[in-house]
Amino acid sequence: MGRLTGGDPSLLRRINSAVVLHALRGSDALTLTDLTRVTGLSRPTVEGVTEGLIEGGLVVEAAPEEGEARRQGRPARRFRFRAEAGHLLGVEIGPHRVAALISGLDGRIIGAGSREVSETAPEDERLDRVRTVVADVLRRTGVPRSNLRAVGVGTPGIVEADGTVRLGTALPGWTGLALGERLRRSFRCPVIVENDANAAAVAEHWKGAASDSDDIVFVLAGLSPGAGSLIGGRLHRGYGGAAGEIGALHLLGRGVTPEHLLSTTDEPLHPLDEQAVAEVFALAKQGDARAGAAVERFIQRLVHDVAALVLALDPELVVIGGWAAGLDGVLQPLREELARFCLRPPRVVLSMLGEAAVGTGALRLALDHVEEQLFAVDGTVSARR
Amino acid sequence: MGRLTGGDPSLLRRINSAVVLHALRGSDALTLTDLTRVTGLSRPTVEGVTEGLIEGGLVVEAAPEEGEARRQGRPARRFRFRAEAGHLLGVEIGPHRVAALISGLDGRIIGAGSREVSETAPEDERLDRVRTVVADVLRRTGVPRSNLRAVGVGTPGIVEADGTVRLGTALPGWTGLALGERLRRSFRCPVIVENDANAAAVAEHWKGAASDSDDIVFVLAGLSPGAGSLIGGRLHRGYGGAAGEIGALHLLGRGVTPEHLLSTTDEPLHPLDEQAVAEVFALAKQGDARAGAAVERFIQRLVHDVAALVLALDPELVVIGGWAAGLDGVLQPLREELARFCLRPPRVVLSMLGEAAVGTGALRLALDHVEEQLFAVDGTVSARR
Repeated sequence: MGRLTGGDPSLLRRINSAVVLHALRGSDALTLTDLTRVTGLSRPTVEGVTEGLIEGGLVVEAAPEEGEARRQGRPARRFRFRAEAGHLLGVEIGPHRVAALISGLDGRIIGAGSREVSETAPEDERLDRVRTVVADVLRRTGVPRSNLRAVGVGTPGIVEADGTVRLGTALPGWTGLALGERLRRSFRCPVIVENDANAAAVAEHWKGAASDSDDIVFVLAGLSPGAGSLIGGRLHRGYGGAAGEIGALHLLGRGVTPEHLLSTTDEPLHPLDEQAVAEVFALAKQGDARAGAAVERFIQRLVHDVAALVLALDPELVVIGGWAAGLDGVLQPLREELARFCLRPPRVVLSMLGEAAVGTGALRLALDHVEEQLFAVDGTVSARR
Repeated sequence: MGRLTGGDPSLLRRINSAVVLHALRGSDALTLTDLTRVTGLSRPTVEGVTEGLIEGGLVVEAAPEEGEARRQGRPARRFRFRAEAGHLLGVEIGPHRVAALISGLDGRIIGAGSREVSETAPEDERLDRVRTVVADVLRRTGVPRSNLRAVGVGTPGIVEADGTVRLGTALPGWTGLALGERLRRSFRCPVIVENDANAAAVAEHWKGAASDSDDIVFVLAGLSPGAGSLIGGRLHRGYGGAAGEIGALHLLGRGVTPEHLLSTTDEPLHPLDEQAVAEVFALAKQGDARAGAAVERFIQRLVHDVAALVLALDPELVVIGGWAAGLDGVLQPLREELARFCLRPPRVVLSMLGEAAVGTGALRLALDHVEEQLFAVDGTVSARR
């Protein structure tokens, strides 16, 4: 239980500083009078705190508004949050491509880049590709590497808290890779590594299809689907970071591997051969019976996996993303089957961010990290156990 | 964002009061000097707060320790928490029995009772049985009904926040029943209704097989299993209170109903006919091939349901409860299959509370409710968004 045995002036100062910064971030520019009104702090406190934030580079005096100078003798000074005081990267490292997004401290994306990479590329080659994409994006946006405050990374696999990939069968050399440590060599700021479906869930909640719900499951639908979930607006990683790794469910008590599901011959499809899978879907649309049956099996499995997630977690909303989301005829059977079998069926929608979801979520995780430093106050008073 | 614009004396007083009460609850009896040391509060504050708690009936002066009077001229006064200042009920309303547990404010159980009830009994009869059991327990423990501070209830079904059963197919007349409202007529204190598996999860965490973990799934294993989960020590109810209601998963894309799973004839077993099921298990043990196959199907389904929960939630620990937990040969196949198919397999253990789990969890939920009133401080300062 927390103690409250007298005021801590430095704690108070930090709280007040966070309050003022928060107010400034939520608007274009504010006067000291505005800040006094919005925060409930005294004028001297607001002045002192604002001065400190200016010294720290996070706040700057804004230009007076057009016409204001003419109306009054001397316009009130206005202050704004310096979004350009730091930058963030969101990086996706996937089986077929690596991508990077960059934003200022306000989270507005100011640049992006991506490169294809072979699904068979060894880890060193894949990481080289990441470095190239990041260097490109920094160069094109003119952001010095030293101005990065945090880097978020989304990638397939179970990721430990320190950024090591505990298990990642989708990418060669990924299992056991100290991905966070490897990437930290390229940056002088924190690097946060997260499972790709988890990152995508965060992204859809931030600025995608799930912005109106705090209890969501995001399904990265592919041959072996993964999922990320938010509970009460917070990422649910699971005890060992493996929550939502539903891919193995289908193998229980059967001899079926995922590749066999979509195969129209006796040869299994390569699990990541999206082109081949898209062809099977196209054939099915043209009326090919074997392709149709393969598609049917694929959708049944997706329905089953999503139903398992929904029954276990009871989300308000399910967002379907990943390449399978782009295929026709995925959403309707999902909705129908969930309505039949779930005691409380959730809404089911398609991803709004599409290909950008993982990188966007990685960027948001980097921003969360920085905001925690800017806004968090240690020793927060709580009388609960 | 919270404001901190000066001390609120009544808030401070409540915090200090909660701190002192918490210290007293954690020990047999403390002197004012002990309290000053443990809480970090000043002597006058401790004295004032303790006086207020005595007036409120929550604290009483304890008898001096044996021999202390002889050692010193005048022994220091010692104070203790009055666990008897209020009482709590934990009620289980199940298909075959209703049961009640009673405790003081310290959560120590001082009485219990139960009655059998037919699985076909209509809701009025079942509620009558509940009232009888509760009256029995109160009479035998000598606790006046007016001394109850909260009543917790665990029952099958999806339960709304107000205690209405949204869906409950296990008990006749349960779906749509305003259970909380009906029970509140018998008590003058709050009545909290919760899904039975959720209550059992809370119980195993409180004083059962999961007391060392905050991330658990409790499986109420029966013909149609339900589950409750704690995430970070908190009950995860899901957006609509349906989290863990995994029973329907097995029906997806198949024509199999749960009753068919264990049937050795063409007649399905009644889903709640535990006696018949136990006989099938006994036959299987004696080498009966058809019974063996039925048991195999039952265990495979349980493995599949538990795997779905584990893959979705990634708990540290799975606790198997319910009547199926008492059958031989359930635990080992679960452990083996989870180890094979889960990327990060959890520990799997049997319930320690057995039949008492649901009632114990209901009691704990009632205690939580009262503790929130005793210890919670509104307006807790937080500078996070």
